[in-house]
Amino acid sequence: MKSKILRVNMDELTVEFENVPEDYKNLGGRALTSQIVADEVSPKAHPLGPNNKLIFAPGIVTGTNSPNSGRISAGGKSPLTGGIKESNAGTPFAKTLAQKGIKALVIEGEPKKDKFYILKLGKDGEQFVEADDYVGKGLYKAYEDLHEEFGEGIEITGVGIAAELRAANAGISYTDPEGMSSRYSGRGGLGAVMASKGLKFIVVEEPEENMIEIKDKETFDKGRKKLANALMEHDVTKKDGALNTYGTSVLVNIINESGGLPQRNFSEGSDDRSDMVSGERKAEEIKKRGGVRPHKCSPSCIIQCSEIWTKEDGSDPVGVLEYESVWSLGPNCGIYDLDIIGELNRACNDLGLDTIEAGNTIAVAMEGGLLDFGDGEGALKLMDEIYNKTPLGRILANGAEFTGRAFGVDRVPTVKGQSMPAYDPRPIKGIGVTYATTPMGADHTAGYAIAPEIMGVGGEADPFDTKKGELSKNLQRATAAIDSAGYCLFIAFAIMDIDEGMEGVVDTVNGVLGTDYSIEDVMDFGKEGLKVEREFNEKAGFSKEDDRLPEFMKEEKLPPHNVVFDVPDEEIDSVWED
Amino acid sequence: MKSKILRVNMDELTVEFENVPEDYKNLGGRALTSQIVADEVSPKAHPLGPNNKLIFAPGIVTGTNSPNSGRISAGGKSPLTGGIKESNAGTPFAKTLAQKGIKALVIEGEPKKDKFYILKLGKDGEQFVEADDYVGKGLYKAYEDLHEEFGEGIEITGVGIAAELRAANAGISYTDPEGMSSRYSGRGGLGAVMASKGLKFIVVEEPEENMIEIKDKETFDKGRKKLANALMEHDVTKKDGALNTYGTSVLVNIINESGGLPQRNFSEGSDDRSDMVSGERKAEEIKKRGGVRPHKCSPSCIIQCSEIWTKEDGSDPVGVLEYESVWSLGPNCGIYDLDIIGELNRACNDLGLDTIEAGNTIAVAMEGGLLDFGDGEGALKLMDEIYNKTPLGRILANGAEFTGRAFGVDRVPTVKGQSMPAYDPRPIKGIGVTYATTPMGADHTAGYAIAPEIMGVGGEADPFDTKKGELSKNLQRATAAIDSAGYCLFIAFAIMDIDEGMEGVVDTVNGVLGTDYSIEDVMDFGKEGLKVEREFNEKAGFSKEDDRLPEFMKEEKLPPHNVVFDVPDEEIDSVWED
Repeated sequence: MKSKILRVNMDELTVEFENVPEDYKNLGGRALTSQIVADEVSPKAHPLGPNNKLIFAPGIVTGTNSPNSGRISAGGKSPLTGGIKESNAGTPFAKTLAQKGIKALVIEGEPKKDKFYILKLGKDGEQFVEADDYVGKGLYKAYEDLHEEFGEGIEITGVGIAAELRAANAGISYTDPEGMSSRYSGRGGLGAVMASKGLKFIVVEEPEENMIEIKDKETFDKGRKKLANALMEHDVTKKDGALNTYGTSVLVNIINESGGLPQRNFSEGSDDRSDMVSGERKAEEIKKRGGVRPHKCSPSCIIQCSEIWTKEDGSDPVGVLEYESVWSLGPNCGIYDLDIIGELNRACNDLGLDTIEAGNTIAVAMEGGLLDFGDGEGALKLMDEIYNKTPLGRILANGAEFTGRAFGVDRVPTVKGQSMPAYDPRPIKGIGVTYATTPMGADHTAGYAIAPEIMGVGGEADPFDTKKGELSKNLQRATAAIDSAGYCLFIAFAIMDIDEGMEGVVDTVNGVLGTDYSIEDVMDFGKEGLKVEREFNEKAGFSKEDDRLPEFMKEEKLPPHNVVFDVPDEEIDSVWED
Repeated sequence: MKSKILRVNMDELTVEFENVPEDYKNLGGRALTSQIVADEVSPKAHPLGPNNKLIFAPGIVTGTNSPNSGRISAGGKSPLTGGIKESNAGTPFAKTLAQKGIKALVIEGEPKKDKFYILKLGKDGEQFVEADDYVGKGLYKAYEDLHEEFGEGIEITGVGIAAELRAANAGISYTDPEGMSSRYSGRGGLGAVMASKGLKFIVVEEPEENMIEIKDKETFDKGRKKLANALMEHDVTKKDGALNTYGTSVLVNIINESGGLPQRNFSEGSDDRSDMVSGERKAEEIKKRGGVRPHKCSPSCIIQCSEIWTKEDGSDPVGVLEYESVWSLGPNCGIYDLDIIGELNRACNDLGLDTIEAGNTIAVAMEGGLLDFGDGEGALKLMDEIYNKTPLGRILANGAEFTGRAFGVDRVPTVKGQSMPAYDPRPIKGIGVTYATTPMGADHTAGYAIAPEIMGVGGEADPFDTKKGELSKNLQRATAAIDSAGYCLFIAFAIMDIDEGMEGVVDTVNGVLGTDYSIEDVMDFGKEGLKVEREFNEKAGFSKEDDRLPEFMKEEKLPPHNVVFDVPDEEIDSVWED
């Protein structure tokens, strides 16, 4: 193995390459970040204190030419949830880091002076550069300036103004293929952890030599082709398929139709106006405006669900309005205007905020009477509060639960302090079991029950059926494995339905590692990884009683189906039974 | 038993007298509020939602002429800690409620309209009165106006501007013998619970008939005398003794001397300037200004540790500057000026804020760079933010941990979300075990290990010794019993050292109830009550991993003794072993 662990000490501003310990050698992505956090961070550490660590790890296949392999995991103890956090993103930064031979980047300590730095990982070595000029600057401009300062052929990760506030909804941004601040390890506030270390940006130069080692090239190539074939065959992921044509926002109309698209802070599950912000409308509009659609978030992607959205005049590009962002900043705030949503999304990308949490925050502030539902201009002004670092900005940058407390709101859709994504769990119960039980706090990507419950992918499950423990458990294990392999979660649509695709994943992993894992072995890795995360959380103070949805979802019936979340606690807890 | 439970339904604005269930008949004060919360409130209820309840209960002996029996417990699920809360106070309101025959007042539901009410419990019945005119008014003026509106012979409990914000540091205020807003169930944010029910004030008229029933008058009288004798014999509680002469602030110099008086957000344990705010200085100053010292907080008090503090010109009376308040608003903020502290204390009483939490909040804001340590004028201006209900005011009114998160501070002295009182647990380890384990969050009154550790009362214990599980356990059980009996905790000094005093407590309880409990039985009641509270918290999501002090106290050595908090986790957990 050529790759190394790079340990960055912010006390002394030093870096050190370490050999990869035997135990870590077959780990990557989420499995690796979570294992390092479990091994090196006290569960009682303050998330913003010197004893928390921030870990970046590309997946096992990341940096290869396997399709949709451009993922990176960021991990640490979350300031938002107080538990372990892994948040992954698709970005060319992932590939560049992997090809540079960095299996994990461990950032620890904090500088003696209250100061921000840029860490440059260059062709000719590592260096720290003072970041004073970047403090208070929006990330779009900052990335432009960094490209100017450090030249072409670089990829960037970094944190924005929200992280300068050490706020719990500060995400970590990465460059997209255009070099913009569009790709995000958004969830869980790891941006604040990065800022607490005094680290503003990491700039990685493309290496002269690609350090990726593929131990069994033949198996790898066989697998890569199998996976590509499956992706190009499945209706959801193929060329001119759902994701390729409309992006993730294809779900707006589908979930609205199901009655599970939360409107106005989870008070209704559908609204006819949702169509005004649907994927279909957006694709049309992008065409008109001369944006880009389809588009890839990272070089190896063949699904291409991304896009570049602009204002009507073609200005202010936003590298993708994801379904989740459109929903959270849109219908969940009673806003049905793609232009407003686009501006809000751009502000989030520029400030360094997770959009899911940001939209929920605005909705909770609306519920608390700070502004009216549907007030798009008012929502945009709230973003200025964060730019200006006002006390109100500090409240909002800390997320929905924090804002709920500031405004005395008792309807706050969070689990373990993290806001729910774009699926109301009352009429789609399996996703609710995932929200409740994943160690990450409410997170759809942790076990995407929507696939069988709504899309008929990976089998069929009645969304109203409360027997969902087994479904969520299996999805969570599979997801943990995919997040560790370094594949985009969207390959799941194809590999759940097409056996060859699943074999392709396992073959590529075996090819890189020189192992002989079976599909069951890979699922077992997922299971083991979850256990590590769960144990960390238990030591941090979580119990099964924290695996519960908020009270109001068990009491308030959600129109139009008028159902509550009624999965019994025992069914929820069964996720953690063997 | 003549007394009843009065159930107040804020949905319908109705009240109903209920017979006391057999199970509750020998309970009072804390044991009763906690039992009703455990029986009627879901541990998963949102503290500010319709399913939380607020309970008031006088103690078993409250309303009798037994000394220091004028206590009332308020209970509910805490918005500050998320766990069960009992917060008790000495006030004539307690006696009046008890003499009216109200064993417990259960407030439930929330009004359909967003409106505040006054509940009048009059001689001629109960009625709701709209409270519109009182919204936004400081409590000093409000209490004056209430006395005008409802006439003489009333006692009041109510909530201020902080509670109107539904903020987690909103306490519940009660009248002192002068009718001022000076007495507090301060801790844990129960004021926000009261406000969430739409209840601004409860006004109780003195009843024509005293409904207190003493089943065995002879035993009671015998006990009452024994207790009075013990109180008048013990150095701490006797006439011209420590508390009577200097009030609770007698501790300032003592704890400063011990190296455990936290300075500037728990960064040092002593400072010579502490003497400038000592009990001795304060007593002198009160004499000069024509304030009152000694003074009783409620009619039956014979210790009289209270006082009335004023500005130099005799204006703006504050019904007691307690040791805890002087410390939190003083040395813990680097403020060594009794006049500033007096103004801050008056603002807290007027806004309806717990002073311990408020002082810690200011100190954490100072740590976060909002203002400098020692900036008294700046601290006073922060109070204006709460009066004006600004976003910064909302942050501050939510307490120290919340403020810490808003300003990204990683040194926050809280347990279960509640700020520590005036004893640094690093050089006084027994009190640290109490902070860690009491179901209330950091709370000195829950098991006052300072008595044996510093004062040599109730035995002697080396403050640096880490074997403190047994000590804290026994103190917590005894305290739970005293809080349920309805006695002021300060009787503990005398009854721990003088056997006759302890007998007096048991005799008076037996006298009122007509029971034949032994001292051991009474201790068992304390133990059982704690178990009820602990179980509620477990169901709410707490585990033993939450029974821990903040990370920085295990890492940062506290001058002058340069020690960390090093009680092993197993020793802490032994509190909950039988």
